Amino acid sequence: MAQDKENTERILRPLPTLSDVAQAAGVALSTASKALNGQGKLRPETRERVLEAAKQLGFRPNDLAQSLVRGRSFTVGLLSTDNYGRFSIPLVTGIEDALVNAQISVFLCNTLGSPEREQQHLDSLLAKHVDGIIVTSDRTNSRAPIDLGKLDLPVIYAYTRVEDPNVLCILPDDEQGARLAVEHLIKQGRRHFAHITGPVYFEAVQLRAKEMRAVLGEHDIPFTERRVLSGAWEESWGYEAANILLDRDPLIDAIFCGSDQIARGVVDGLRERGIRVPEDIAITGFDNWEVMATAVRPPLTTVDLNLHELGKLAGTRLLQMIDGQRPTGIERVPCSLVVRESSAAQSKSIQTKSKIQQREA
Amino acid sequence: MAQDKENTERILRPLPTLSDVAQAAGVALSTASKALNGQGKLRPETRERVLEAAKQLGFRPNDLAQSLVRGRSFTVGLLSTDNYGRFSIPLVTGIEDALVNAQISVFLCNTLGSPEREQQHLDSLLAKHVDGIIVTSDRTNSRAPIDLGKLDLPVIYAYTRVEDPNVLCILPDDEQGARLAVEHLIKQGRRHFAHITGPVYFEAVQLRAKEMRAVLGEHDIPFTERRVLSGAWEESWGYEAANILLDRDPLIDAIFCGSDQIARGVVDGLRERGIRVPEDIAITGFDNWEVMATAVRPPLTTVDLNLHELGKLAGTRLLQMIDGQRPTGIERVPCSLVVRESSAAQSKSIQTKSKIQQREA
Repeated sequence: MAQDKENTERILRPLPTLSDVAQAAGVALSTASKALNGQGKLRPETRERVLEAAKQLGFRPNDLAQSLVRGRSFTVGLLSTDNYGRFSIPLVTGIEDALVNAQISVFLCNTLGSPEREQQHLDSLLAKHVDGIIVTSDRTNSRAPIDLGKLDLPVIYAYTRVEDPNVLCILPDDEQGARLAVEHLIKQGRRHFAHITGPVYFEAVQLRAKEMRAVLGEHDIPFTERRVLSGAWEESWGYEAANILLDRDPLIDAIFCGSDQIARGVVDGLRERGIRVPEDIAITGFDNWEVMATAVRPPLTTVDLNLHELGKLAGTRLLQMIDGQRPTGIERVPCSLVVRESSAAQSKSIQTKSKIQQREA
Repeated sequence: MAQDKENTERILRPLPTLSDVAQAAGVALSTASKALNGQGKLRPETRERVLEAAKQLGFRPNDLAQSLVRGRSFTVGLLSTDNYGRFSIPLVTGIEDALVNAQISVFLCNTLGSPEREQQHLDSLLAKHVDGIIVTSDRTNSRAPIDLGKLDLPVIYAYTRVEDPNVLCILPDDEQGARLAVEHLIKQGRRHFAHITGPVYFEAVQLRAKEMRAVLGEHDIPFTERRVLSGAWEESWGYEAANILLDRDPLIDAIFCGSDQIARGVVDGLRERGIRVPEDIAITGFDNWEVMATAVRPPLTTVDLNLHELGKLAGTRLLQMIDGQRPTGIERVPCSLVVRESSAAQSKSIQTKSKIQQREA
């Protein structure tokens, strides 16, 4: 690392001001201002001279000064209450998409799960007079509302929820997503369902399981609670659960999984038992975490949470709130189904053969 | 979504100003200012009354106004030239760690790979008078420098590089990381090496392969270029390459992989050929992408890029540049080795047996 004295001095040179531009162009300060704002009556060559001087000097109008005048900072804070995880990535790009198009810049604030750090970030955002705050998380479970003291600032909770009817929470439509997956499996001729999913204290786990039961009921497909296995959001749980399930009940021909990671463990577990996916058992995941879903052999049919769209909607709603609207309640964004090979129609002959083999084993 | 007229009006209420505080406390503007800044000679009860009024009103000093006075905005831009990927996550938390502790806020700017969007973000950052910019990417390959026109602003490239000796690029030490993995495999008694890695046009791919050859040379371990297979950064490539490699040369007892994803495909490919990891062949990955490395069966020994530390260093260096220093060149952050089960010492008897079986097959 070399130090460069000359460069160091260049760095400390202050940014050019409007009066530098006026001086360089040989005009009054008010003339320079008019020329740069495209306002007032000026001779074209004067305006041209000012613009050229501004360009030469690298002059830029100061947003900070404009913010003070307009009473808006054109910034918002993005408060992430967990470590950034894979769910945050499409969410954040969606939020940015909506806001960048409205010329609004986003302050990134990661609380790393610490309440002190959250308060430090909030103080800093409020001192910077942000126009609003979006709170996100790595999970959709509920959290405490952020504490803004006396301030009444637009706040949106995206992919996380608070138990307060006066705020707006934007969440994926877990029930509708579960319906898509289960109806798809039924259309493939599947009738013997199981569900391997995450911890029961997740609202998403409860909603998806409930909707699966509802859809099966609508189609008069019998289902027993013994076929719901709830554990960790991990591949190893999927692997273990597939073995528990098949030991109990080899007749299963469809497993609706609560995440792509769980589904991957399930597929690996079934392969090692000699059970073929999708010929013997069709599998669906949840999340459409592409790097995971496409690496499963065969590639995984799964429910996409449309987190980029969810993020965009959060950004759009925040803009509406900054403009004075005040939407409240829970808004759910529809999921979609991405069909890959793990859920193809049943192949009767192969399935019968392998099930007989398995019973004999 | 319910609209609430009363709430809408509350939202539009302007933030309390210093003069609101002065009025509420029944003091002059200058007195309120002194009380809030903790300066000047005031009676304790007067200061107390002003602080109480500020608290009641939810008054906060305006950073924007202070920025104009101090000529610094206490903000920096984080320009991400790719979609945020898993590499960005620890990098960004590290950058934030360093800057938040210095009371600096980070503007998030994702270019989504579009030059127009990059310029739009840069214009916005410069208009907001950021104190510096950190440019990051999802890959360490070189990119064009950002265009700041006439401005001489502190800029750091983190986990990406530009071909310009006058800027500072912070990168992982790929050579040292490769050395850690290969020396570890040698210590486990391995002598028949292969390397399955990503596309050759990646600088990281070139550096790691070069260092592997150097380390093997130092230990007089023979190596042939036929045992280097270069392909996509994907599990499916690892799976395919493992099969190509073992068809050619069943004597291999160590595979140094260029990524965790590739390593996972390799392990799956070997398992299905009846080759045991680590008894027959020891495997190491690169990245320590935990969700991937721990899901491999057996869990993967891998090189950690220490991206959180890399991000922290980028933040620290930017602070030094804002203070007038001007480090340049390439600074490399050491990797570390995370030892899990995939690289245990060789088990001679088992290995000999399985290799004989394979030759007979």
